[in-house]
Amino acid sequence: MSDLVTRLLEGLPAEAVLTDTDVLASYAHDMASFCPAGAPAVLVLPREREQVQHVLRVASELRVPVVPQGARSGLSGAANAVDGCVLLSLVRMNRIVNIDPVNRIAVVEPGVVNADLSKAVAGHGLAYPPDPSSWEQCTIGGNIGTGAGGLCCVKYGVTAEYVLGLDVVLADGRLLSTGRSTAKGVAGYDLTRLFVGSEGTLGVVVRAVVALRPAPPPQLVLAAEFGSAAAAGDAVCRIMAAGHTPSLLELMDRTSVRAVNRLLKMGLPESTEALLLAGFDTPEPGAELAAVGELCRAAGATEVVPAEDAAESEMLLAARRAGLSALEAVKGTTMIDDVCVPRARLAELLDGVARIADRHRLTIGVIAHAGDGNTHPTVCFDATDPDESRRARESFDAIMALGLQLGGTITGEHGVGVLKREWLARELGPDSLEVQRGIKAVFDPLGILNPGKVF
Amino acid sequence: MSDLVTRLLEGLPAEAVLTDTDVLASYAHDMASFCPAGAPAVLVLPREREQVQHVLRVASELRVPVVPQGARSGLSGAANAVDGCVLLSLVRMNRIVNIDPVNRIAVVEPGVVNADLSKAVAGHGLAYPPDPSSWEQCTIGGNIGTGAGGLCCVKYGVTAEYVLGLDVVLADGRLLSTGRSTAKGVAGYDLTRLFVGSEGTLGVVVRAVVALRPAPPPQLVLAAEFGSAAAAGDAVCRIMAAGHTPSLLELMDRTSVRAVNRLLKMGLPESTEALLLAGFDTPEPGAELAAVGELCRAAGATEVVPAEDAAESEMLLAARRAGLSALEAVKGTTMIDDVCVPRARLAELLDGVARIADRHRLTIGVIAHAGDGNTHPTVCFDATDPDESRRARESFDAIMALGLQLGGTITGEHGVGVLKREWLARELGPDSLEVQRGIKAVFDPLGILNPGKVF
Repeated sequence: MSDLVTRLLEGLPAEAVLTDTDVLASYAHDMASFCPAGAPAVLVLPREREQVQHVLRVASELRVPVVPQGARSGLSGAANAVDGCVLLSLVRMNRIVNIDPVNRIAVVEPGVVNADLSKAVAGHGLAYPPDPSSWEQCTIGGNIGTGAGGLCCVKYGVTAEYVLGLDVVLADGRLLSTGRSTAKGVAGYDLTRLFVGSEGTLGVVVRAVVALRPAPPPQLVLAAEFGSAAAAGDAVCRIMAAGHTPSLLELMDRTSVRAVNRLLKMGLPESTEALLLAGFDTPEPGAELAAVGELCRAAGATEVVPAEDAAESEMLLAARRAGLSALEAVKGTTMIDDVCVPRARLAELLDGVARIADRHRLTIGVIAHAGDGNTHPTVCFDATDPDESRRARESFDAIMALGLQLGGTITGEHGVGVLKREWLARELGPDSLEVQRGIKAVFDPLGILNPGKVF
Repeated sequence: MSDLVTRLLEGLPAEAVLTDTDVLASYAHDMASFCPAGAPAVLVLPREREQVQHVLRVASELRVPVVPQGARSGLSGAANAVDGCVLLSLVRMNRIVNIDPVNRIAVVEPGVVNADLSKAVAGHGLAYPPDPSSWEQCTIGGNIGTGAGGLCCVKYGVTAEYVLGLDVVLADGRLLSTGRSTAKGVAGYDLTRLFVGSEGTLGVVVRAVVALRPAPPPQLVLAAEFGSAAAAGDAVCRIMAAGHTPSLLELMDRTSVRAVNRLLKMGLPESTEALLLAGFDTPEPGAELAAVGELCRAAGATEVVPAEDAAESEMLLAARRAGLSALEAVKGTTMIDDVCVPRARLAELLDGVARIADRHRLTIGVIAHAGDGNTHPTVCFDATDPDESRRARESFDAIMALGLQLGGTITGEHGVGVLKREWLARELGPDSLEVQRGIKAVFDPLGILNPGKVF
């Protein structure tokens, strides 16, 4: 038994310390393509905060890297193993400690699955809005680590806006409490928000106080078809400029519409160049649906279909929900990008991605949180074909370059991980990178926390 | 002429570099009581980013402290001079660079007055929600520095949620851009939120990208009178637990109600122990007002007065708006606290403050953003009476101790400055303080940025 494992077992039960090679291999990576994963030394599955502190103390003493993990549904390789590391999976720390309807907060452990929290608070008439597509698997800890978004963000904002306070185990095993349990608070620097999106490079979240909202009414959805990406982008601009606040505003380009058509036999016209879905969860959404329908027609929509009720709304959303599976079916493997641009530049991004697809002789479908300008251009490729894989990787990079050129960011909600490390440097520039590295060093002077990620 | 002034004049016009003693004295402090202010060496009023960079380069070379200032309406002494410092007033950098209704953002310089931004965006059907009471004087730069709140926060959140990106001049004069112009973005650590509330100790904000919202309908207000703080606190809990989201939910205790009664001759019954004001800015607020009125009655309200229209709503709000002036009139000087507690503990805080007032033989009126649990216990005292001043200071501290004891924070929205420095250490504890000092050192290794503030 290695010295590392012996030391870990001094503070953890045997069932929480795994070294079986197959198990380690299955925990070594998240859902990202093209991200190298190293060979972990051990997998630890703690149930208690004190056990996490023990892991970090041992790791600090022995100078062993620690890679924190949630559900490993991430798309940037942030949860991938590095050689010789402790994989620190938080999935067994999955207690909902408290739900407080008066103060509209919940206290949760990091391994709580997003959907489990949503269901639990729904019983109190409340909602935890952040809703990544992986919400049925992903954990709140992972959501905090990546700064996750989702479909609701256009109205309700992202994870950062719902994290009020954190308990974090620092690299040396000390416990740090940040933030507050109150609605407001400005005592000292905002360490809470610094941890959100830090991808396990600054500390290990073991508890979070999150804000809740009253559960909204069920949303009513409208679908609109367009003959060009420009027309759909124009519709998005008109909707937002007119002061509407949809509860979702999603867009699918021609490629993703066709892929879904094939998968689900939906019978959407092949001439559809873009499909826009707008939802409203106000008490009387009908009037807004009518107004938004008019704006879509004014922007050149060829067809506008407002749902009559919740069931019809779900049918319209089925195309959107099937989007990624449909694109995966095209070539077996996908690589999902995450560039976010000012929403006025959405059409330019869509047209640019179509050109990139042509140039690299690839299928690239775009599914977008259009209301946020956050697009997921999804490169479809055959991973067994080296040339196609190379072209996939190149087109992925070309899309990030396009996003930056349009005044956007390389990542709206998926994070940097190992996938976009070089691109982060391009987006931030040397001065910001120097500051960020300085902050990293304050929290993790030995460099044991998820090394090689983000930077 | 001092070496400092000579060097400053190399990059600034003479009209921007002031050394007149009276002028310096008038700029040496903000609105906080009991906060020492040092003797500044010079006041600089730049109009351009490059001039701010010049000031910081000179200050770094000469190791001279720099105190950034907005409108100096702050209440914690964060903008107070330290001996020999450069007072760096940003009030002349007051351009609204861009208002973009499609992307719902504005780009502003730090000296833009909050009310000026609000008025400018209203012309586009938009709103910039954060609304500190000083909104007609305070600047966006100051709002960012303090992490300002206001009446709207219970529905719309605080300044931190509206700052998307910043241009910041670092201590050595370099320009750092943080964040983004897009709705979402998680590229690297959230430096933007780190600067919000950092009170000029990490850098000088010279430009901000802020998020806007569609302007809401005018709000309709309900007033409810209660015979005890406990009943009013109970009403707040019932309103929030029932899932209402008021656009304001304000509370005045007996002392502030009586002070306003005297000032405005409003004829409120002297038996009123607490006055609650609830506003709704939904398209149909009448129904919510009725429901909230019922909840207030169930909690024991002695009188419930719903406004019929916007004009009546403004009349009801007049009492709230006159609150601080009325308390100032009591003894000539006030000291405004800012403790925020979980809203379920509001009544305990009110009762505790009443006991503290009795014990210290002082008048302390409480005005509270009740929906956030954010209270402003306001100590009234005669500043020319040393014993009363001492008791005022002691009661102010006792209120912070009570806030912490109730699971709250010493500052919901006013910041730490010099006023609450020792209390910050008590709230955060040594580990957090060590981390925060480490971050400060990353940005300001020479310690020239607003030294002695926050820590």
